[in-house]
Amino acid sequence: MNLDLFFFLIVSAVIAILSFLFAAWLRHWINKQPSSNSRIAEIGGLIRSGANTFLRKEYNVLAKFAGIAAILILTFLPTPIWQGNIRDNIVMAIAYLFGTTLSAIAGVIGIRVATVANIKTAEAAQKGIKPSFMSGFRGGAVMGMAVVGGTLLGVTLVMLITNDTTALLGFSFGASSLALFAKAGGGIYTKTADISADLVGKVELGIPEDDPRNPAVIADNVGDNVGDVAGMGADLFDSNVASMAAALVIASSLDKTVGGTVNSSMVFCYAAAGLLASIIGVATARMGKHGNPTRALNSSTYVTTAVFILLTALATWAFQLQWRIWGASIVGLLVGVIIGIATDYFTDDSKHPVHHVAKASESGPAFTILSGVSYGFISTLPAMIGIAFSALAAYKICEPLGQGYPMFGISMAAVGMLSIVGMIISNDAYGPIVDNARGLAEMGGLGDDVIEIADSLDSAGNTVKAVTKGFAIGSAGLTVIALLGAFISEVNDAASALHVQLITGFDIMNPMVFFGLLVGASIPAVFSAMLILGVDRNAQRMVSEIHRQFREIAGLKEGKEGVTPEYGKCIEIATAGALRELIPAGLMTIIATMVVGFIGGVQAIGGFLCGNIVSGLLLALFMSNAGGLWDNSKKYIEAGNHGGKGSEAHKSGVVGDTVGDPFKDTAGPSINTQITVVSLVSSLMSTIFLTCSIFH
Amino acid sequence: MNLDLFFFLIVSAVIAILSFLFAAWLRHWINKQPSSNSRIAEIGGLIRSGANTFLRKEYNVLAKFAGIAAILILTFLPTPIWQGNIRDNIVMAIAYLFGTTLSAIAGVIGIRVATVANIKTAEAAQKGIKPSFMSGFRGGAVMGMAVVGGTLLGVTLVMLITNDTTALLGFSFGASSLALFAKAGGGIYTKTADISADLVGKVELGIPEDDPRNPAVIADNVGDNVGDVAGMGADLFDSNVASMAAALVIASSLDKTVGGTVNSSMVFCYAAAGLLASIIGVATARMGKHGNPTRALNSSTYVTTAVFILLTALATWAFQLQWRIWGASIVGLLVGVIIGIATDYFTDDSKHPVHHVAKASESGPAFTILSGVSYGFISTLPAMIGIAFSALAAYKICEPLGQGYPMFGISMAAVGMLSIVGMIISNDAYGPIVDNARGLAEMGGLGDDVIEIADSLDSAGNTVKAVTKGFAIGSAGLTVIALLGAFISEVNDAASALHVQLITGFDIMNPMVFFGLLVGASIPAVFSAMLILGVDRNAQRMVSEIHRQFREIAGLKEGKEGVTPEYGKCIEIATAGALRELIPAGLMTIIATMVVGFIGGVQAIGGFLCGNIVSGLLLALFMSNAGGLWDNSKKYIEAGNHGGKGSEAHKSGVVGDTVGDPFKDTAGPSINTQITVVSLVSSLMSTIFLTCSIFH
Repeated sequence: MNLDLFFFLIVSAVIAILSFLFAAWLRHWINKQPSSNSRIAEIGGLIRSGANTFLRKEYNVLAKFAGIAAILILTFLPTPIWQGNIRDNIVMAIAYLFGTTLSAIAGVIGIRVATVANIKTAEAAQKGIKPSFMSGFRGGAVMGMAVVGGTLLGVTLVMLITNDTTALLGFSFGASSLALFAKAGGGIYTKTADISADLVGKVELGIPEDDPRNPAVIADNVGDNVGDVAGMGADLFDSNVASMAAALVIASSLDKTVGGTVNSSMVFCYAAAGLLASIIGVATARMGKHGNPTRALNSSTYVTTAVFILLTALATWAFQLQWRIWGASIVGLLVGVIIGIATDYFTDDSKHPVHHVAKASESGPAFTILSGVSYGFISTLPAMIGIAFSALAAYKICEPLGQGYPMFGISMAAVGMLSIVGMIISNDAYGPIVDNARGLAEMGGLGDDVIEIADSLDSAGNTVKAVTKGFAIGSAGLTVIALLGAFISEVNDAASALHVQLITGFDIMNPMVFFGLLVGASIPAVFSAMLILGVDRNAQRMVSEIHRQFREIAGLKEGKEGVTPEYGKCIEIATAGALRELIPAGLMTIIATMVVGFIGGVQAIGGFLCGNIVSGLLLALFMSNAGGLWDNSKKYIEAGNHGGKGSEAHKSGVVGDTVGDPFKDTAGPSINTQITVVSLVSSLMSTIFLTCSIFH
Repeated sequence: MNLDLFFFLIVSAVIAILSFLFAAWLRHWINKQPSSNSRIAEIGGLIRSGANTFLRKEYNVLAKFAGIAAILILTFLPTPIWQGNIRDNIVMAIAYLFGTTLSAIAGVIGIRVATVANIKTAEAAQKGIKPSFMSGFRGGAVMGMAVVGGTLLGVTLVMLITNDTTALLGFSFGASSLALFAKAGGGIYTKTADISADLVGKVELGIPEDDPRNPAVIADNVGDNVGDVAGMGADLFDSNVASMAAALVIASSLDKTVGGTVNSSMVFCYAAAGLLASIIGVATARMGKHGNPTRALNSSTYVTTAVFILLTALATWAFQLQWRIWGASIVGLLVGVIIGIATDYFTDDSKHPVHHVAKASESGPAFTILSGVSYGFISTLPAMIGIAFSALAAYKICEPLGQGYPMFGISMAAVGMLSIVGMIISNDAYGPIVDNARGLAEMGGLGDDVIEIADSLDSAGNTVKAVTKGFAIGSAGLTVIALLGAFISEVNDAASALHVQLITGFDIMNPMVFFGLLVGASIPAVFSAMLILGVDRNAQRMVSEIHRQFREIAGLKEGKEGVTPEYGKCIEIATAGALRELIPAGLMTIIATMVVGFIGGVQAIGGFLCGNIVSGLLLALFMSNAGGLWDNSKKYIEAGNHGGKGSEAHKSGVVGDTVGDPFKDTAGPSINTQITVVSLVSSLMSTIFLTCSIFH
């Protein structure tokens, strides 16, 4: 290993450790915050234990899955054990397990902190919006720092130990496959509880959200943690690792050609700069004079962005790196911001789409759905153009550097877009924490003023979410394009080892590519459908349980003193259902990839990946944005428009929101991970597809 | 022109004329059927005049549009008038206008017959199911024979006169652009009226479907004709022309290479055989002993299929054509049947998906939507695999014939799948005729027995529709793949004239292709959204008008003798709204194609077409199938399941059906045409894109 790269690896490791120390300090700060209300402590304890139970059971299932996967990897990857070098297979299997483990740890850390921060945030709200905001924000930041620090440290360690980018793909596959199931499981859990609680509580009985009489209310709050905190953490860990892995595969193949390690070094340099920028952004975040939480969240994002641009420019100048590649990263980052703003238009409650859907709701739920679906479809256009444009721009900027660099430019645009991911996760994890805090304030009886503060923090979380989702989907788009480049690079490594013809691309007019394209395009649709049906089935079971409790527990409906519902039953149902549903959808995508690969070989897989990316991005954008739009339309009506709460428009709005829930929190965000997993499976199996397919 | 081709052109013209004569005989037969009920005659007259008024106004708008388009074509296509041969431009403009005119005539013939056949079918139902079925079926068959005869005659004439496949693309573009707007306009009209009539009539007031008190009831029946009969006729005319045009472009380029005209001749030979088979299928259609209309419709389809296979095998043997190409056509035809059967599974009311959605409806409309969306997503898989497989199989079958033949094989698979289109249209147009007949029987007070017969004919129409839609989407898929081949062929003609490098394909890894791919994929989503929003806006206007009439016309709600609503007002609103909404969506797709072409040149357009096909097929399948599924779930509940009419499940089912209406009858089927139009615009503008784009 060249000293050049070694230097950047050490720097990366140091900054990663710095971020862990910072996370520990933040956690310490949160623990120090006062909490005194015993009712809140009790409910908070129920939420924490529910979340821990789910996570333990989920990881139990996933550990078995990962074990089987590791054995299969050991036997077959990168080459079947009887053909290749057994050492490579052992390294790959260990890297895979390391990826799954780090991903699981990220989830656990997030849950641990979030289930304390929610209590502190609720209690701090009694003293005003500023301290409450800081508890919520710093709680989220622990997750952000831990996830990004974990990414950088994990990738650095794999490279230090193996110096093998194929092992890195194995590591990334470990992270992604766990994220796929964690996201699906958590997403099913959270929406099962949310929908069931709303359906019986709000719609049938007309009791408020988070009312302690509702048997599903604790499960709902648990869901925010296991779905939004743990699932989202695993998801962004996976994207972040995948973008670095793709960039490093391409960089190392370039380095082999030109000599030295400058390109690989650059990836670490930029990733480390991004983490440092996020640390600075989080550390300097304060709420301004006017106490506007949205502005506080956004301004810390802008600070991080500016610091990243500055740091990378300095580094590029100091280490005499390629300015063109710097340009590609910055294009990625800026397009990410633009996609976020465009997405925001479709879900912001002061803009036309939300107003239109709210107005249409007056004519009945069918119009809520039709208008929401329409705006959801339209909302895909700016983001698709943005992703397409940034890929094209990165390519063109880096084209003069010579062969191989354009694809490296695209991968660095993805790294750039994800550079501020530490900040993004902090903002994203802030959402469920303050949402939980609102619930605790309501259930703990802290009074209307406190609930109002919690509400305003919560609403800021929803607004900021649109921007962060834009980033998440945009970067997933660029990452998978880069993974397509990584796939070709892997295939050609295998092809030259086997002395067969190298491939240069995938021609749409090749019927194998086209075959893969059409099949690949339908996979995200089927995958989403399986998850939504999972929520559907599970919610129906939970609704009957809630009905049973209201029927059988005397005094519950009337709110008689001392009568509490059996919260545990609902938690059990959500847990058991989510565990039953989380494997099939993910497994289907992996098997479909293998079937296409074994039938049509590398060309069919190229088409398959491309179709999967195109339809995956389209559906992910559609579902996330339509879901957010329905959610905010309902809230807009609840704020007193078009008849307010209890009106016909409101009933329609609730239907829209219920449809949107699994769209935006189960299926939509899981598609990102699904795309990554499929891309990684393809890269890892490239040798096998090259030699064992029916038509190759 | 070679005698070989000339012979087949003459044969085609003769068979086309034969089909016109047969259509005239069928029409004569229908007119001869007895009709005596004056109430039915009166209402039938209202429907006819409403439909004619809409058509006249629509064609008025479209004539202006076509005029402007013709002037633009004259100036710019195939090459700008100041660069090329003016004669070519004149030919192209005339061919374009010829295409639009034939397409418009197809719509008019359909409406004329359908608005007589509906009356005859209603009256015949008094004498039993068999005569009633024959009236409905033969009414549809007039449309089928006229459309397919028109296609074959039009294509034959263009080839006889110009012997220029580029002019043929102009002809096809004329047919498609008219179909795009006619389909959009008719689709918006029909669903505006349908949704509004249901929403106020069934949901709010609880009066039956087709109740004469409902002010929108005539508009609803008019809609069946202008949307389903005229729009669908224009649509299938367009697909049929496009598939022949694509096959002929490829065939003629092959013929130039190998000499002779055998490939072009083969296209005409097979198309003529298909029309002959359809004539035989229609002529022999009879209802069996058990009076099962579904079986009668399906068996005539199977007869046509068998006759086609036999005729083409005979022709291939007699004229010593390539058996491999015959094989490709047959693969296309059989896969079409299989896609139809698979589609049927998702919409058949005796199968799991319909039952599941009906059951889920008990928990509220959100679950109707979620489960329907899920099955709609899953339903895309078999059809996508079917299309992918048939393209791959056709390619592989024809590969041994040499370069260029594989793509010809794909285009002949599309011709094969569309060969029995005469039969398909007959079955498809049967649907709205018997639907109308049911309405007339209700409004004319013919009694429950007659309504029951009409209902069973109607339900057969819905079942058969699933199969025919499978064909329509499947063949559109294959046709656009062939059009992609035709596009390359056109580009290379232009490229060799300009002495620039020929293109061989579109590599996904080329960032221009990828850019086009992502943008192209979002266009069908935006296009659908625009149409659905059009229906949404328009329906809201009509609902207020219906409310006004019930409020202001004394005695209307109570059904007082002699009090009739102002049917004309609703017809006016539907007409005005549809005319306002029909241009923007179609124009957007054409402009988007040109923008991408001018920015990214031929490579971007290749990607754009591919993305458009992939996402267009996916969304068209999703929307058509989900819509059909919701419709049948509602009917299944109405048949007494899950509480039957008036239950909570029924209310949810109605919401699902209302959402599904514009999915399946406005947006879904229009996407087919949108894909074709985009492909044709690209082919026609290939020279301009090759020379005038920013990056080329």
